[in-house]
Amino acid sequence: MSIQKSLQKILMMIKERDTNLAEFFQNLHPSDFAEIVEDLSDEQKSELFNLLSDEEAALVIQEMEELDQVVLFQLLTKKRASAILKEMATDDAADLIAELPEEDARELLKLIDEDAEEIRGLLKYPEDSAGGIMTTEYISFPENMVVEEAIRRLRDLATDAETVYYVYVVDEETRLIGVLSLRELIASADGTRLSEFMRKNVIQVPADMDQEEVARVVSKYDLLAVPVVDDRDRLLGIITVDDILDVIEEEATEDIYRRVGASEPEGVGLVEATVWNSIGRRLPWLIITLFGGLLSGSVIGAFENTLQSIVVLAFFIPVIMDMGGNVASQSSTVFVRGVATGEIEGSDSWRYFYKEIRVGLSMGLITGATVAVAAVGAARLFNLSSLLGLVVGIAMFTTVTLGAVIGTLVPLLFSQAGIDPAYASGPLVTTIKDVTGLLIYFSIATLFMPLL
Amino acid sequence: MSIQKSLQKILMMIKERDTNLAEFFQNLHPSDFAEIVEDLSDEQKSELFNLLSDEEAALVIQEMEELDQVVLFQLLTKKRASAILKEMATDDAADLIAELPEEDARELLKLIDEDAEEIRGLLKYPEDSAGGIMTTEYISFPENMVVEEAIRRLRDLATDAETVYYVYVVDEETRLIGVLSLRELIASADGTRLSEFMRKNVIQVPADMDQEEVARVVSKYDLLAVPVVDDRDRLLGIITVDDILDVIEEEATEDIYRRVGASEPEGVGLVEATVWNSIGRRLPWLIITLFGGLLSGSVIGAFENTLQSIVVLAFFIPVIMDMGGNVASQSSTVFVRGVATGEIEGSDSWRYFYKEIRVGLSMGLITGATVAVAAVGAARLFNLSSLLGLVVGIAMFTTVTLGAVIGTLVPLLFSQAGIDPAYASGPLVTTIKDVTGLLIYFSIATLFMPLL
Repeated sequence: MSIQKSLQKILMMIKERDTNLAEFFQNLHPSDFAEIVEDLSDEQKSELFNLLSDEEAALVIQEMEELDQVVLFQLLTKKRASAILKEMATDDAADLIAELPEEDARELLKLIDEDAEEIRGLLKYPEDSAGGIMTTEYISFPENMVVEEAIRRLRDLATDAETVYYVYVVDEETRLIGVLSLRELIASADGTRLSEFMRKNVIQVPADMDQEEVARVVSKYDLLAVPVVDDRDRLLGIITVDDILDVIEEEATEDIYRRVGASEPEGVGLVEATVWNSIGRRLPWLIITLFGGLLSGSVIGAFENTLQSIVVLAFFIPVIMDMGGNVASQSSTVFVRGVATGEIEGSDSWRYFYKEIRVGLSMGLITGATVAVAAVGAARLFNLSSLLGLVVGIAMFTTVTLGAVIGTLVPLLFSQAGIDPAYASGPLVTTIKDVTGLLIYFSIATLFMPLL
Repeated sequence: MSIQKSLQKILMMIKERDTNLAEFFQNLHPSDFAEIVEDLSDEQKSELFNLLSDEEAALVIQEMEELDQVVLFQLLTKKRASAILKEMATDDAADLIAELPEEDARELLKLIDEDAEEIRGLLKYPEDSAGGIMTTEYISFPENMVVEEAIRRLRDLATDAETVYYVYVVDEETRLIGVLSLRELIASADGTRLSEFMRKNVIQVPADMDQEEVARVVSKYDLLAVPVVDDRDRLLGIITVDDILDVIEEEATEDIYRRVGASEPEGVGLVEATVWNSIGRRLPWLIITLFGGLLSGSVIGAFENTLQSIVVLAFFIPVIMDMGGNVASQSSTVFVRGVATGEIEGSDSWRYFYKEIRVGLSMGLITGATVAVAAVGAARLFNLSSLLGLVVGIAMFTTVTLGAVIGTLVPLLFSQAGIDPAYASGPLVTTIKDVTGLLIYFSIATLFMPLL
């Protein structure tokens, strides 16, 4: 059934106050359900959620965008809201609580008492850290349990845990000492003790690790979940691979936006964000670019006399700026992404930089020669010496080479200094390569002026 | 144990021909092992792999980069290589076979006979399609099997399957009719038939679906694996979430590179790629930029007389070009990424476009006013009328507005025409905004010239 058809069906059920949603719900994935809910009016949302059980409501809400969750929660009574919260995974519940107005959050935490401690615990960690994205619904057993009992216990616990595909083995002080996949468990003989076949070298992450780093660990080791521990190796929670998918997507978007000086709107979609929200995220970058552009312009101002004598020099300003700009953004983009994916790390940076110098020199030669030919043509047209070709060619060669060098060197130095290199690829690189490119162009032109 | 220490230990074991690697291997993740292998000499690699069992070798090779896999395979005898191939997951084996020289590939496929059919089947699909990334090692049961037997069968099959976390239910003609998660299976009573509690609305993908689309499905529904079917709904294979993590990372990189006219080197790392490889990937873009830049320059050429009279106009060329450029790249970047993540789809595109116009107008007003002040300062310095501020301000306002409009409209039209919008954000947008920006600037200046 298409989403559109499902929407109509749901609208009819709401109208007729049809309480037989259970069956319908079973054939519709909560994620599709959530998409439908987002298109309903507030009134329809209220009516629909009155027809759902707490558990069904929790499943749907977990799949909704944060902003929509907050809106919906403010339509529900506090009692209902707390009942639904109890059914949600602790990580999702904590994320939602963090977005609610403080007053509401406090009241709800009071109402759910039993899980409140866990949620409050999760709220302590920064949003982008391992602790901030973990859930506390994992399964852990003591080391001397036997396979048969573990499988029996699992069958009881399966409906509540976030994942049953890893079973963690802990000692008396809840320190993580081993891990078993469900597949290893079901493939083992009944009487075996967990300690006999658990893997002891558990891949784990500390609670304060950045989520991007966590994603790299999960991806490298092909894990379905990774355990989070405190500084004494005590098991705090797990992060499942479906959350890691979101982290990778989110971090890639953040990197991409950062490179052009735009950040993602918080808790609201691109399309829904207000005009002022968009401007606020983008204007600072543009103001810096503006002053950078005026600085580059002052280089031209300094060579006013040269330009006054040979006004055709202005003709090549755009091509020199554009080429320097595009080479620099190629270089910085490839380098920054290489660092983000871990392809370039440690001493690779400098090896890559030296190669980039050779790439810049080669591309500078080719484009310099090409533009020199165009300049000779222009010189003929304006009755100037063909030496203009040499001037423009040399300027292009140095600009392209410098573009590649600056485009790599600036983010490289940023990353060595511990600053996200994505920040380096914007106005700073633009300004440095414009100022140097124009300076070289006009200096050479001034030098050759008597001959042109 | 650190990777460095492990490397030393392995080197010693190789030297002493220590066949007792099994225990050592158990404490080292294949992925870490693979990293170590990549640092060894060819001779050391050969010796090391002689000490490993076929199964161990397969686990390590699966975690290596494709290029390193090919190098290693050419060090092994065909007999050994085929034995290792048999132990590999069919998707990884097929990917490796596809990279080998044709002669070697044919010979190896002959030697492994039993799995060869499956691997040949996988090689039929395009590399970036669902069929190209799926594996054939899934578990499927008939609908009338009972839970108890399914669990028993699973315990036997667990070591060979790529994932045991989903069990697919098929009819006599291997058509996919249901799915069960291992967690649902172990949570159910022994005597229940699978057909009684399997989910019938299986989320599945056709073999020719693009991998980016597949990733979106897996991410949306939080799946650990997704089944791949042919046009008659017959089950062909599955794609597991660990491969999806790689797809998301790969597609993000591709998007990022495409935007600056650089593609990723094939089968070789960024640092290892040759200078000519890098140039070949980047130069075409630059040559287009070069001609675009000359075109923009010809706009300046057309206003030679204006510029000759008021040479200070050249001072503002960089700031107008830079601002138009940065606004356009912000707009195109945010739009293209929004489309890639699915945040902007269908009619959202136009709603987003209309909002972007308002964003552009507002940012144009602010930056236009700012630069006008700077221009009034410059006018005083060069004894020109303060009207220069008005000229530059209006030019900046229109350039920034147009930058936002063009930066969104070009990729929007590309995506409506079914072309990847990432291609639209490069030289084309640069040239359009430069030509229009400079045209407006010099037209207004020419108009006001008598008053300046």
